[in-house]
Amino acid sequence: MNIKDLIQSRQTQFLDELFSLMRIPSVSGQEAHLQDMQDCAQRWKEILLSSGVDKAVIFQTKGNPIVYGEKIIDPKAPTVLVYGHYDVMPEDPLELWTTAPFEPRVEEGLIKGRGADDDKGQSMIQAKAFQLALENKLLACNVKFLLEGEEEIGSIHLEEFCQNNKDLLKAEVILVSDTSMLGADTPSITTGLRGISYWEVEVTGAARDLHSGIFGGAVPNPIQELSVMISRLIDAEGKITIPGFYDKVQAVSAQEKAMMAAVPHSDEAYRKSVGAPGLKGEKGYTTIERTGIRPTLDVCGIWGGYTGEGVKTVLPSKAYAKISTRLVPDQDYQEIGRLFENHLKQLAPPEVKVEVRFKHGGNPYVCSLDLPAYKATEAAYQKVFGKRPLALRRGGSIPVIATFEKVLGIKSILMGFGLESDAIHSPNENYPFDLWLQSIEVVVEFYRRYK
Amino acid sequence: MNIKDLIQSRQTQFLDELFSLMRIPSVSGQEAHLQDMQDCAQRWKEILLSSGVDKAVIFQTKGNPIVYGEKIIDPKAPTVLVYGHYDVMPEDPLELWTTAPFEPRVEEGLIKGRGADDDKGQSMIQAKAFQLALENKLLACNVKFLLEGEEEIGSIHLEEFCQNNKDLLKAEVILVSDTSMLGADTPSITTGLRGISYWEVEVTGAARDLHSGIFGGAVPNPIQELSVMISRLIDAEGKITIPGFYDKVQAVSAQEKAMMAAVPHSDEAYRKSVGAPGLKGEKGYTTIERTGIRPTLDVCGIWGGYTGEGVKTVLPSKAYAKISTRLVPDQDYQEIGRLFENHLKQLAPPEVKVEVRFKHGGNPYVCSLDLPAYKATEAAYQKVFGKRPLALRRGGSIPVIATFEKVLGIKSILMGFGLESDAIHSPNENYPFDLWLQSIEVVVEFYRRYK
Repeated sequence: MNIKDLIQSRQTQFLDELFSLMRIPSVSGQEAHLQDMQDCAQRWKEILLSSGVDKAVIFQTKGNPIVYGEKIIDPKAPTVLVYGHYDVMPEDPLELWTTAPFEPRVEEGLIKGRGADDDKGQSMIQAKAFQLALENKLLACNVKFLLEGEEEIGSIHLEEFCQNNKDLLKAEVILVSDTSMLGADTPSITTGLRGISYWEVEVTGAARDLHSGIFGGAVPNPIQELSVMISRLIDAEGKITIPGFYDKVQAVSAQEKAMMAAVPHSDEAYRKSVGAPGLKGEKGYTTIERTGIRPTLDVCGIWGGYTGEGVKTVLPSKAYAKISTRLVPDQDYQEIGRLFENHLKQLAPPEVKVEVRFKHGGNPYVCSLDLPAYKATEAAYQKVFGKRPLALRRGGSIPVIATFEKVLGIKSILMGFGLESDAIHSPNENYPFDLWLQSIEVVVEFYRRYK
Repeated sequence: MNIKDLIQSRQTQFLDELFSLMRIPSVSGQEAHLQDMQDCAQRWKEILLSSGVDKAVIFQTKGNPIVYGEKIIDPKAPTVLVYGHYDVMPEDPLELWTTAPFEPRVEEGLIKGRGADDDKGQSMIQAKAFQLALENKLLACNVKFLLEGEEEIGSIHLEEFCQNNKDLLKAEVILVSDTSMLGADTPSITTGLRGISYWEVEVTGAARDLHSGIFGGAVPNPIQELSVMISRLIDAEGKITIPGFYDKVQAVSAQEKAMMAAVPHSDEAYRKSVGAPGLKGEKGYTTIERTGIRPTLDVCGIWGGYTGEGVKTVLPSKAYAKISTRLVPDQDYQEIGRLFENHLKQLAPPEVKVEVRFKHGGNPYVCSLDLPAYKATEAAYQKVFGKRPLALRRGGSIPVIATFEKVLGIKSILMGFGLESDAIHSPNENYPFDLWLQSIEVVVEFYRRYK
C-alpha cells in the first residue's frame, strides 16, 4: 500500500483524534479556561502515546503545562524536535461564526472550528505522520515532541523551560508546522523571519499644556518637532536614514531573488486586498522583497495634545510615538536600538527634550537552504505537491524560533501547511481536509528522506 | 466707606456666588454635560437678578442657552453690554490636578478650580462691580449682560442670536473680561486679538489596521505621511509655508512696535515660566511680536495606531491631527481655510487619502486707543493699579469680538484681568483672590468714569 492510500484508510480515525483536541476550548488568553489547558495537555499526552512515543510527560510550569514525548530509535541516529502549540485564540466575535467554534466538523471539504489550522490541525499533521512513518518502518531518526500552551500569549514560560531542559530537548533540527504556504497550488516554505526592535519616544516642550493662542509661535510644539523627526527617519527613496542601519544587512543570493520573483503576485491585487490608494516602499525593491528581505520602519502609534471630540486650542507639553523596525540578517536588535536612539537625539532640536525607551526586541532568523533537513523537506513537498516549493522569507516574527536558536542552538524548519484563507485568529477558522491529508503525506515523505 | 473697603466687606458673599457657578461642570465640548449647561445658565440668571438687573431671561438656542439681563437707568444715557461665557474647557488630564476641578476653594491666596479665571471668575468681576456701582449710585450708564455657553466650542449659535436680537443688544460699547494682563504689577489692556482657523485632518492608508511585520514596508503608513505633511507646514525660518498665507498681514506701525519693545519681558524668564528647554518661533521677530502681531500655526493634537500600554505591532489604517492657525488683521479665516486645505492636499502623496474638516474659526480684531470707553478703562486701571496700562495686542482669539463688530457694529473693550500663571485650559486653573477683589474695584472705577 502506498502512503497516500495508507492515509486514506486511516482518515476517519485521524480526524476523530483531531476533533477530540478541537472540542477542548483551550484559550490561553482567558483565565476561565485554565482547566481546559490541563485537559488539552492530557489529551495530547494520550495522542502522543497512541501515536507510538516511548514516553510522554506533562511538565507543569508557572503558566500552562508543556507536553513532551519522545521516540528514540537509535541513540546514534539524528533527532528531530517537533514543536507545536495546543492553545488557541479567543473565539469572539462569536456572532460571526457560521458553525460553533468548538464543535468541529467537516463541511464543504473544510475542517471547521477554532484550531483547525492554528495550531491543532497543523500539530496533528506532525503527530500522525510520525505514527505512520513509525508503523511502516520508514522512520530513520529519533523524534521528540514539545507542545506548549502559551504561544498565543507570547510563549512566556517556554524560554525558561528550554534553559532548564537543554539535554532533554537536544536535537539536530526543529520542525514547526505553524506557518502558511502561498497556496495549495504554490507550495512554499518559510526560510526567514524578520526581527524587531520597538521603542517609545517621548518629546517634551513646555512643562505643562499651554494655550495655543497665547503661547503659540513662541514656545516649541512637541507634536511639530516629533513630526519633523519622524519625517526625517525615511528619505524620499524610502530608505531609513539611521546611520549604520543597513551596514549588516546580508546581500541576498541571485537564486533567492529569482525565487521571490517567481512568486505569483500582483501589486494591484495586493493593493486592493489591503484597500489602500497606493503602495509605498523602498525604491528598487518589489513588494515581496520589501516585506521579506528588507528591513523597514513603521510608526505603530502616535499621540499628543487634545485628541477628543471637537476643538481644544492647546499647545501641548508632550507628544509620543511608538516606533518599530523590522530587521533582517545580520542586524542585531540591540545594536539597532543604540543607533536609533543616537539618531533621534541628533535629529532633536535643542528646544525640546527627547527620550527613547526600548520596549521589545528580537533578532531576525534565516534558515540556510543547504541544511540537510531543509533539503529533505524540499524534496518531500516536491514529491507530494508535484512542484519544487519556493523558499520565502516572510515579514512577521515568531519569537520562539529565535529563542530555540539562542537557547538550544538549534535551527528550525518552518514546515507550515496553512493557507491565507484559513482565517486563523478570526471567526470561521478552517482548513481543507484534502490538504490536511496531503500534508501528513509530506511529513511522512520527509521522514523517509531524513536520516 | 471707600470702594476698596466696600468690596472687602462683601468678599465672602461674592466668593460664595462664584463657587456656586464653578461647582457646575459646564463643559461645552462634551455631550454628557448638556444638563449642566442649563443649570449653569439658570444659576447665572439668579445671580444677575440678585445683582440688581431689572429683568433677566434665558434664551434657548439650538445649542446651549444664552442668558440676558439688563438695567436701564435712563434711555438717553449710554449703554454698555457686558459679554462673558459660562462654559469651560474639559478638565482632562484629571490626574494632573492637585484639587478636584469642580470643587472650588481658596488655598494659598488662590481661587482654585476650573473656571477660576476663564471665564466664570472674570465674568463675576463684571457682575459684582455692576452690583456695587448700582447699589452705591455710581452707575451713570445702562448695563446689559450677555452670557453664552459655547465660547470654548466656537460660539456656534451666538452670531445667529445677535442677528435676531440687534435691538435688544444695542449698546455704545461691549465690555469683555476674558483676557489677561502682563502681570499684577504690569497692568495692560488687550487692544488686538488674533483670529483662528482650526481643522481636523484625517489621513487614511489601508482600509483596516494591518500587521506591521507582514505588511510593513509595502503599504503606506498614515502616521508617517501625516508627520511628513506636518513637518512641511513650517520651514526652517519658522515661516508658515501655505502659499498666500501672509498676503493680507497688515504692517504694524513703528509706534506700536515701540510699545511692544517697552513691555517688560525677559526671554529667559519667559522660557523658565513655561518650563521648556528653549524658545522657538519665526525668525526676525521677538517673543512679544511672535505671540501678538504675527500669525502662527500649531498642531493641537495628534493620534493614530496603538496608543495604549506596551507593544502592538500595527500598521494603522488612519492617523489624525487637529491643526490651528492664529490669524492677524486682515487675514480672513475662511480664506485661510481654503488655502490650508489646498496646500495640504498638494502635500499629500498619492498613496494615502487626506481629508480636511473645518472645525472652528474667527477673524482677528483690533481696537482704537481713542475710543471714549477705552480712555475710561485706561483711567480706571491707572487709579487702582497705580500705573498706566500698556495697550497690547495678544495672541489668543475671542471670535465673538469680531462677530460683535460685524453683526452689531459695536467695538469691544477687552477689560481682562487674567494672569499667565492662571493655567486656563490646563490642570490646576487658578486666580489670585486679592487680584479678583482689585479687579472688581477697577470695573467700579470704570462705571464712575463712563457717562
